[in-house]
Amino acid sequence: MDEVIIAGVGQTEVGEHWEIALRDLAFAAIQEAVRDAGGLRPQALFVGNMLAPSLSRQAHLGALIADFAGLSGIEAVTVEAAEASGGAALRAAYLAVKSGALDIALVVGVEKMTDRIGPSAEEALTSVTDADFESPQGLTPTAQAALLMRRYMHEHGVPSDGFAGFALTAHANAVTNPYAMFRKAITVETYRKAEMVSDPLNLFDMAPSADGAAALILTRPDVLPSHGDRPWVRIIGSAIATDTLALHDRRDMLFFEAAQRSASYALKQARLTLDQIDFFEYHDVFSIYAALQLESTGFAIRGHGWKLAAEGAIGLQGRIPCATFGGMKARGFPGGAAGVYQAVEAVLQLRGEAGKNQVPGARIGMIQSLGGPAATAVTHLFQAA
Amino acid sequence: MDEVIIAGVGQTEVGEHWEIALRDLAFAAIQEAVRDAGGLRPQALFVGNMLAPSLSRQAHLGALIADFAGLSGIEAVTVEAAEASGGAALRAAYLAVKSGALDIALVVGVEKMTDRIGPSAEEALTSVTDADFESPQGLTPTAQAALLMRRYMHEHGVPSDGFAGFALTAHANAVTNPYAMFRKAITVETYRKAEMVSDPLNLFDMAPSADGAAALILTRPDVLPSHGDRPWVRIIGSAIATDTLALHDRRDMLFFEAAQRSASYALKQARLTLDQIDFFEYHDVFSIYAALQLESTGFAIRGHGWKLAAEGAIGLQGRIPCATFGGMKARGFPGGAAGVYQAVEAVLQLRGEAGKNQVPGARIGMIQSLGGPAATAVTHLFQAA
Repeated sequence: MDEVIIAGVGQTEVGEHWEIALRDLAFAAIQEAVRDAGGLRPQALFVGNMLAPSLSRQAHLGALIADFAGLSGIEAVTVEAAEASGGAALRAAYLAVKSGALDIALVVGVEKMTDRIGPSAEEALTSVTDADFESPQGLTPTAQAALLMRRYMHEHGVPSDGFAGFALTAHANAVTNPYAMFRKAITVETYRKAEMVSDPLNLFDMAPSADGAAALILTRPDVLPSHGDRPWVRIIGSAIATDTLALHDRRDMLFFEAAQRSASYALKQARLTLDQIDFFEYHDVFSIYAALQLESTGFAIRGHGWKLAAEGAIGLQGRIPCATFGGMKARGFPGGAAGVYQAVEAVLQLRGEAGKNQVPGARIGMIQSLGGPAATAVTHLFQAA
Repeated sequence: MDEVIIAGVGQTEVGEHWEIALRDLAFAAIQEAVRDAGGLRPQALFVGNMLAPSLSRQAHLGALIADFAGLSGIEAVTVEAAEASGGAALRAAYLAVKSGALDIALVVGVEKMTDRIGPSAEEALTSVTDADFESPQGLTPTAQAALLMRRYMHEHGVPSDGFAGFALTAHANAVTNPYAMFRKAITVETYRKAEMVSDPLNLFDMAPSADGAAALILTRPDVLPSHGDRPWVRIIGSAIATDTLALHDRRDMLFFEAAQRSASYALKQARLTLDQIDFFEYHDVFSIYAALQLESTGFAIRGHGWKLAAEGAIGLQGRIPCATFGGMKARGFPGGAAGVYQAVEAVLQLRGEAGKNQVPGARIGMIQSLGGPAATAVTHLFQAA
């Protein structure tokens, strides 16, 4: 009886929350998840966070949030794997519940990136690149993504507005997501006129750094007091894989090996093939990452990831819907919380509670969270229970 | 078959390692642990670290260390729970192996506190206190410990050199530990003449911030290809508990509730009572913490923790040997690695490989790692296999 389910989800609106402390943001998401799970009281807390120690000068979030959420005394730790911290925290909680050592675990992803007392978000984010060989040369994550994008466009003959489809889809889906940061559709003209950030990467090729928190309650069916008609979702696959931290150490910079490997481990565990997946929440913190993820996981052949977006195949009615609630691009990118938002959104899809964002007939969903340019990749597969 | 064992251990000398990069330190400990485990190749890496993101501007240590240790591609994350990060990483690895999702896990605790590009170690350490209500008032961990010590001395009528026993025992034991930072015995005169740091806490009431790495290989007996005569040690108890992060929120500041609770959970799991424990590696980053831990776990009654040290009961031949290789005080305190050093030392004791530091007939050991003043407490129990 080691099956693990998600019994409750919660999220806060993503945005600039200068008036709300990190602990309050986390608490809001936790409250919603606990309520959604019918009041199950967690025995342990797994926090996904990447930047609080530098941006807010606050480490030790496990004890802090457990206490503030009225759960003082319970087991609590933080799990960090750069931008994939949320996904990694989910996996840690999954393993804990699966082990039988715990019956009910709480995952909260929380990040405050816009309101800070430490260095700038870009400077802090650079700490996830190699501090001996990359960041001292001035290589920020954005610059790194721009270099990958330039190479990709050169190799595959992508036109200058070739990546527009990712932003268009994300913004179109965010319009009806009350938790999204940018609830406004854009046109290809908006994309074409966007300010260049790091040529060829423009403002719409990157996700906005934001504040937010999302939470999940994990448990096993055998310990649920009474199922009732409360909807829950099974975790049928869970895997983390890594790659070299520094891009220059890779054989092929345009293939995310960790994304490929973690996806194939998760599929193997679930005994599924890719064509059985009904939607894919990718890590579109940069549009080039989304394209490379589609190719590395196998949803597109090499060089064709951008075409999936350009041809509308990633829309809600498309062949493989992605960023169904706006993705990191338009729902917003709250760092280590992002992977938990993906999970919350996947659960809503599988429960059929996604409203206007519903993927018709969604039964199985895949989410994948990346740390850096897939130096870490965390994949989870969920199935409607 | 969910029994978890430690099949290999490794550690580096604790000290000021300005000439060695964080990744090299970690690799040295990993190499030793893998060799000690007969070459078992880990499938996942759990890093215990608390300060690299601020002190070295390096987050994402999982992918970095996995890659540098020649394990590129494996699952890897960092677990943070302030100074208890090492113990928390051990527990995460334990849960992963126990769950059956992984067969072989590697734990590495690593910290570089003396050589840094970020803020001072004291400033960075302060990030584990409450950043909204404690640190802005200037409350550093050392000041916090001094306040606790002052109150304790007042409550229990402790003489000014009452805590000397902790430092004396630690330094006496470190003399024969080749990995220790300070291999020099001290006398009570040394303690009495020591420079005051934060009255009444003097230089010998606190552990030196240091650099170091320690590693463990965890697996299950059912997956070991062949046991041979290779010694290993069982993990028979594992628990984390938390308390309020801010001291002012506690009912009783002189009792570490999380220490009590995590110890009693671990004992319950192992079906043991305290009198069956042969030695106790406590978290003597401050001598007052050691005293409060002895009382909170039940080895001493309230107000008598310091007496255990003063009366020699914590020596290698004493009633409850503590800090058997010098503890954090004299072996040195490498932050998030400290909890893993405790585990390595406990394994050496239980294998009977502790040399001149051997606790006679040691069969069962307890280690306990704290984050802040026991806002987090991680307890593990080990038994000779």
